[in-house]
Amino acid sequence: MALTLDDLPIRDDLRGQSPYGAPQKKVPVALNVNENTHPIPEDVARDIVESLAAAVLDVNRYPDREFTALRESLAGYIGHGLRADQIWAANGSNEVIQQILQAFGGPGRRALGFPPTYSMHSIITRGTGTEWVEGRRDEGFEITPETVAAEIRRVDPDLVFLCAPNNPTGTPVELATIEAAYEASRGIVLVDEAYFEFMPADRPSAVTLLEGRPRLLVSRTMSKAFAFAGARVGYLAADPAVIDALRLVRLPYHLSSLTQAAAVAALRHADEMLAMVDDIKAQRDRIVHGLGELGYHPWPTWSNFVLFGGVDDPRAVFEALLDRGIIVRDLAIPGHLRVSAGTEAETTAFLDAMRDIRLGA
Amino acid sequence: MALTLDDLPIRDDLRGQSPYGAPQKKVPVALNVNENTHPIPEDVARDIVESLAAAVLDVNRYPDREFTALRESLAGYIGHGLRADQIWAANGSNEVIQQILQAFGGPGRRALGFPPTYSMHSIITRGTGTEWVEGRRDEGFEITPETVAAEIRRVDPDLVFLCAPNNPTGTPVELATIEAAYEASRGIVLVDEAYFEFMPADRPSAVTLLEGRPRLLVSRTMSKAFAFAGARVGYLAADPAVIDALRLVRLPYHLSSLTQAAAVAALRHADEMLAMVDDIKAQRDRIVHGLGELGYHPWPTWSNFVLFGGVDDPRAVFEALLDRGIIVRDLAIPGHLRVSAGTEAETTAFLDAMRDIRLGA
Repeated sequence: MALTLDDLPIRDDLRGQSPYGAPQKKVPVALNVNENTHPIPEDVARDIVESLAAAVLDVNRYPDREFTALRESLAGYIGHGLRADQIWAANGSNEVIQQILQAFGGPGRRALGFPPTYSMHSIITRGTGTEWVEGRRDEGFEITPETVAAEIRRVDPDLVFLCAPNNPTGTPVELATIEAAYEASRGIVLVDEAYFEFMPADRPSAVTLLEGRPRLLVSRTMSKAFAFAGARVGYLAADPAVIDALRLVRLPYHLSSLTQAAAVAALRHADEMLAMVDDIKAQRDRIVHGLGELGYHPWPTWSNFVLFGGVDDPRAVFEALLDRGIIVRDLAIPGHLRVSAGTEAETTAFLDAMRDIRLGA
Repeated sequence: MALTLDDLPIRDDLRGQSPYGAPQKKVPVALNVNENTHPIPEDVARDIVESLAAAVLDVNRYPDREFTALRESLAGYIGHGLRADQIWAANGSNEVIQQILQAFGGPGRRALGFPPTYSMHSIITRGTGTEWVEGRRDEGFEITPETVAAEIRRVDPDLVFLCAPNNPTGTPVELATIEAAYEASRGIVLVDEAYFEFMPADRPSAVTLLEGRPRLLVSRTMSKAFAFAGARVGYLAADPAVIDALRLVRLPYHLSSLTQAAAVAALRHADEMLAMVDDIKAQRDRIVHGLGELGYHPWPTWSNFVLFGGVDDPRAVFEALLDRGIIVRDLAIPGHLRVSAGTEAETTAFLDAMRDIRLGA
């Protein structure tokens, strides 16, 4: 007879839980997990493979534990005069976030987040034994400086999570809100900028606030703008003392030499990689416009996805799209679905399908 | 003025700590971190690069969260009729161990280990808020069935760590000791077989004990026998219910598509990769013999390294070797040093240098 989880001495707080995970379905048009659906350009792919081939020759040796070349490349890419000693990286921003919580959270400490937001923030928080407290947003999923300060005073958190722009709503977060959060807080303020590159080009990153704010941390990822979800590279910019703290909790050699080589190669082609971003932003704007024309209520978005309301039966629309070979995300927000911006052809397929479904075709 | 760690709100239990790490020195003969100093064979490297090239084409997509192909390859490699649903993998066995502690350890729980042993066992245990209790070994670093059972009755641990063969001593662990640990324990028994492939070919793995023992976990790594330290692939064999428990705590998509592709390719060449192991075992035996002739006291070892005593001033010998371009490991065991078995030429260089040092040359 097969054993179950309950037959094992797992932690009590894990009993009855299910693992995280969007369904892994193979469908022609996958717009459910905010991937960059554009494959990386051929010349970039070739350069990455050449770098990987060089790394394989040395793969019998442990990787550079300090991933110095990668940190220098990331510092150069982020700009704003950042130096390598202000940079950290790990296997996806999830691991960066886990390391932050291992260093600054844990039992007896408390993190404040603002749902609906990236679900891994609360999952990783609880997974490290840190208490997760939900803050209140304003109308339209926004967070004003006044609201963030009031919520921080109410909760007195050790860590504050701000997702800017927010996932899954796409909502912008103004720098004034981040400044207010920092002023009101005694703890770590983490700004998750996973979708930074999809913001309007003239809007500043929270990294412009780092100077003089040692408790401010700005995380990003190569998964989205760099079309690198499969390579698992998340990173962080912060005060060098924060980086020292993360060294205390990271597993030694956590970043493989293959990951380091591939990421450094991709960052050499930042201009070409980011050219795709403009196309994705154009497709996102088409989705906002097209769904609006169909009578849905897309929310303002600075990311590579659109959350839209006005869906009478999200499950039925999800299934009707799936019947047409298109997968989107049902996040159990009543009356809402979320769709990632794809290529021009994928976006057209999605909008055509939504029109058919609206018309009952 | 630069901030320090103490200016930040890090966890109290991290204050004053230093990050783990063997020195990362570039020297001609590096025998300090038990790497496989043989580069992987050229035809295997070519196959790995081809698999990586195929993975890069899809790297804009998230990897297979269930790393099914890799689990099937690992099950085939381990043998003994294991199935993919009994296999887990992560970025190095360190991450496997961290996930085990996240699922089965944590605050209020206690792990028992037997120093001197792999230092990451206690570091990761404490890092997850689990209490670490040190057990007593018998003479010659051995652990008899009686000793392990007595120590488990004394400590009543939630997890027991057995490193078989043990690092940094190389000491064999008999299956009878593992069986006794399981019988005496109510919790998880983790056997760390990182150096399994360097055991005598006729000695059984602890995976032969898995049937009917759902609390028994056997971890291994591709870092050593597969010359894959840079790729960061550790893995585990256990009851499928244990694998389900690890799914609750793993970060989603923790294994990159590059890691998965490289590991699957390397496992296709297991026979060729393991041919290097025989040479390494021969070099290890040369070291044992050669150090004995010089009057040192090498301990019996089933691994790819040798711990040797009879060193009057380990720091002086360490430095004298370093002056000759050879780095070994000083683990602060009085009168001892540890050396990894290298290629034939590296081993000769080490033994020649030891002879020179012994003779005061």
